[in-house]
Amino acid sequence: MTPPRPELPPGQRDLLSLRQSIDNIDAALVHMLAERFKFTQEVGWVKATSGLPASDPARESVQIARLRALAEESHLDPAFAEKFLNFIVAEVIHHHEQIASTGAVPVPVPDPAVDPGSAR
Amino acid sequence: MTPPRPELPPGQRDLLSLRQSIDNIDAALVHMLAERFKFTQEVGWVKATSGLPASDPARESVQIARLRALAEESHLDPAFAEKFLNFIVAEVIHHHEQIASTGAVPVPVPDPAVDPGSAR
Repeated sequence: MTPPRPELPPGQRDLLSLRQSIDNIDAALVHMLAERFKFTQEVGWVKATSGLPASDPARESVQIARLRALAEESHLDPAFAEKFLNFIVAEVIHHHEQIASTGAVPVPVPDPAVDPGSAR
Repeated sequence: MTPPRPELPPGQRDLLSLRQSIDNIDAALVHMLAERFKFTQEVGWVKATSGLPASDPARESVQIARLRALAEESHLDPAFAEKFLNFIVAEVIHHHEQIASTGAVPVPVPDPAVDPGSAR
C-alpha cells in the first residue's frame, strides 16, 4: 500500500488517500460484478433450456425488498440500492434474451490499446 | 449455508443454488457501495471546504480507463464497467453538489415496514 505523500498540503493529501480507498473498492466491485454475471449467465442457460422467461418479476421484487433492507442496515440510500439492482437486472435480462434467441452471449473483445497488467 | 433442496427437479435445483450465490454477491456489493459512498462523502467535504468543483473530468477519465482494464482482466464487458462507473459517479456528483450548496447530504430515512434483521 502506498501511503499518502506527506509533502502535499493537507486537503490534497486527504483527497489522495480517499481516492486510493475508492479505487480499491472499485476494483473489488468490478471483480464481484464479473462473478455475478458468470452466475446470471448460468441462470440464462438454465432458463433457456427449461423454456423459462428471461425476466421474473416475482424474484425481482423479493430481491428489491432484501437489498433495500440491507442498504438501510449499512446506511446506503435504499432508493439508490433499488436503482442499482434495476441497472444490473436490465443488463442481465438483455443477456438472457440474447441467450434465448441466439444461444450465445456477447464476449468482451480485448482492446489491444489497453494493457490489463498496467492497471494493477 | 442452505444447500439446494434435493427433491426439486434438476433445473429448479440449479436455479435455486445459482440464485443463492447471486444473493450473496448482491449483499457484498451493497456493503461495498455503502463503504464507497462513505469515502466519496468525505471527498465531498474536502472539495467543498477547499472550494474544488464537484466533478473532476480528468480523474474520471483515469478511473474509466483503469476499470475497463480491470473488467477485461476479469472477463466483464468493459463497456458495462464504464456504464457502471458513470452510474455511480452521477450519484456521487449529486451528493457533492448537495454538500456544496446546503452543507448536508441526504440521510436515508428508515422504513418502519422493513425489518433489516429479517433480511439476514
